[in-house]
Amino acid sequence: PLSKLSNVGTTIFSQMTQLANENEAINLSQGFPDFMPDLELLNHVDHFIKKGFNQYAPLGGMIGLKEEIARKIENSHQATYHPDSEITITAGGTQAIFTAIASFIKKEDEVIIFEPAYDCYEPTVELFGGIVKRFEMKAPDYNIDWAAVKKLVSDKTRMIILNNPNNPSGKILTENDIQELIKLVKGTSILILSDEVYENIVFDGKQHLSICKYPELKERSLLVASFGKLFHVTGWKVGYCAAPKILTDEFRKVHQFNVFCVNTPIQLALAEYMKNDEHYTQLSQFFQEKRDFLRKGLEGTSFELLDCEGTYFQAVKYDKISDKNDFDFASELTINHKVASVPFSSFYKHKLNENVIRLCFAKKQETLEKAIENLSRVS
Amino acid sequence: PLSKLSNVGTTIFSQMTQLANENEAINLSQGFPDFMPDLELLNHVDHFIKKGFNQYAPLGGMIGLKEEIARKIENSHQATYHPDSEITITAGGTQAIFTAIASFIKKEDEVIIFEPAYDCYEPTVELFGGIVKRFEMKAPDYNIDWAAVKKLVSDKTRMIILNNPNNPSGKILTENDIQELIKLVKGTSILILSDEVYENIVFDGKQHLSICKYPELKERSLLVASFGKLFHVTGWKVGYCAAPKILTDEFRKVHQFNVFCVNTPIQLALAEYMKNDEHYTQLSQFFQEKRDFLRKGLEGTSFELLDCEGTYFQAVKYDKISDKNDFDFASELTINHKVASVPFSSFYKHKLNENVIRLCFAKKQETLEKAIENLSRVS
Ligand SMILES: CSCCC(=O)C(=O)O
Ligand SMILES: CSCCC(=O)C(=O)O
Repeated sequence: PLSKLSNVGTTIFSQMTQLANENEAINLSQGFPDFMPDLELLNHVDHFIKKGFNQYAPLGGMIGLKEEIARKIENSHQATYHPDSEITITAGGTQAIFTAIASFIKKEDEVIIFEPAYDCYEPTVELFGGIVKRFEMKAPDYNIDWAAVKKLVSDKTRMIILNNPNNPSGKILTENDIQELIKLVKGTSILILSDEVYENIVFDGKQHLSICKYPELKERSLLVASFGKLFHVTGWKVGYCAAPKILTDEFRKVHQFNVFCVNTPIQLALAEYMKNDEHYTQLSQFFQEKRDFLRKGLEGTSFELLDCEGTYFQAVKYDKISDKNDFDFASELTINHKVASVPFSSFYKHKLNENVIRLCFAKKQETLEKAIENLSRVS
Repeated sequence: PLSKLSNVGTTIFSQMTQLANENEAINLSQGFPDFMPDLELLNHVDHFIKKGFNQYAPLGGMIGLKEEIARKIENSHQATYHPDSEITITAGGTQAIFTAIASFIKKEDEVIIFEPAYDCYEPTVELFGGIVKRFEMKAPDYNIDWAAVKKLVSDKTRMIILNNPNNPSGKILTENDIQELIKLVKGTSILILSDEVYENIVFDGKQHLSICKYPELKERSLLVASFGKLFHVTGWKVGYCAAPKILTDEFRKVHQFNVFCVNTPIQLALAEYMKNDEHYTQLSQFFQEKRDFLRKGLEGTSFELLDCEGTYFQAVKYDKISDKNDFDFASELTINHKVASVPFSSFYKHKLNENVIRLCFAKKQETLEKAIENLSRVS
């Protein structure tokens, strides 16, 4: 057969964005801001390009950027990574995730995934012959039943993939979750791939508990983050993977043959911009205002708001409006009411439908206002 | 075992660049220009960034860039690719190669490689469980013995990887080579991955024969090229893969989970810049002057010049100087004579040593002058 991924189609984010464009709908589907990034950051790119930094970066990344990342992690989580040998700059969070899986998953290795899950994890594991074991977190609170997770563990378990804060549910891991995870992996050689691309978007004074805060987890973890999400430049495609040297060494073996290295002037611009901590410490507050505005606007409509502890996504239930499955509902909402969303079932292998869709609120005030206006009319 | 690529180290290009930097040597090793790209291109990036194009590109790439690529291919090779469904923008040529292999190579598939070969092909094939069969092209003329290649073909052969013009030998495929290749694959389902990143750097009025010129080959080929090599911006990391829809569909399934998409403002800048054909039609002449300058400078020294039909690399033999193997010779040349090169043996799995090193001449006049001066003293 020609296809290695015969049951894979085009990612839901592209599908919904295309549907939004075709219908001139407000696009609250794919996760990206519709406002300008900070001009200061934009100017840095021009500066470094014109200064002549346009050739290959070292394969691990520009040292200045890796140092700023190490500093950020140290300040945020009191965890230490050696910039040169434990941090690798990647062409976005997705490439970091792909490369982490590529570096460690072999035929018949088992990988535990928590659903709803970002749609790249599973096909990537399968591409390398791995077998996915899933725990389904469910509406309305998306809690993890650790006793059930424990039953998924076998002597073939090679990796657990976390996404914290979770896209699409907005759920963050609690101290109790982390302690259960520590118990689960203790004495095993299970690796953890922790996708924390929304680490700086956590609300109501809650705390993001990074995997790297816990030495028992850090030693076996690959931590992934994204500048696209951090600085409102999803189209620049720069992220990173932080991991102990022994894991980073393996990660880089694959990385060098996958992309070799990442855009040089953009790395330099990000490094310069990161020197000022305020460029990211304010992010939660910035998005909390948008979240609150959207939630307030949807109160009294037929949509039911689920909790949103982090990320820039708001999950809503539409039980009162329709008994269609969420994919059909989201499509019709785009076509008839000009608001594009992402159906939650796309984040479950078995397309679990709980009548929930995801709305991205990383949007300008006026975009959110128009979306609220349109959504208010739905009943 | 932790490692999936236990016999892989850091790529030779990083090793030699690091050695060059440590020894403050003139770096003729890794293939990148040391001169400024065209200011017009640099200005385009700033323009699109400031205009606000900083969010995700479509997964296949920006349509304007794909159209310009299709136009370039049509003009250069009279071959037609549908921009939207047959061209995919990648995070550099290397990512295109990795993704092409990832998309089609399964456990025990055989892949034919012509050595000397760029060092990412083989470990990438192995990462997906493929088995490499090699034909060794040898100094001084690096010809292909097609009868010998034919013996490598079996019913497990899934892919042939070509690199034309060849890095590091500078060899280009002849019409006869192409006809032999056509005979070889006729009636089989063998795919061709054609790495043509140096397609626009061919000398002495010779013609680059792209795989896409030949319908019998195009239908089964993935064609890879690189803007880093075309426009002197190796650090921007943008390339592409052109392939018939049936192959592109599979390529994109993996691509979307590997990097998802590629830097948006840089794609727009490249598209704008490509509107003027002269930005690439002059490239061969530009580099031919550099090649000729280097060759002239090395005449009468102890180095023996091999042919250079294309690429920006000059191969030289050092038989008259030393009987050390090429890795040791290249290292000593860097340390003692302050000129870094790449030993040819790094391009062969079995480290075939023919006392040949590779010199990159994508350098400013003064860099080449200094290098010639240093090399003239070696005897
Ligand atoms: C790479 S497209 C998906 C972007 C995103 O993070 C999301 O919408 O969940
Ligand atoms: C990606 S580093 C290698 C660059 C290159 O094309 C070469 O030196 O051969």
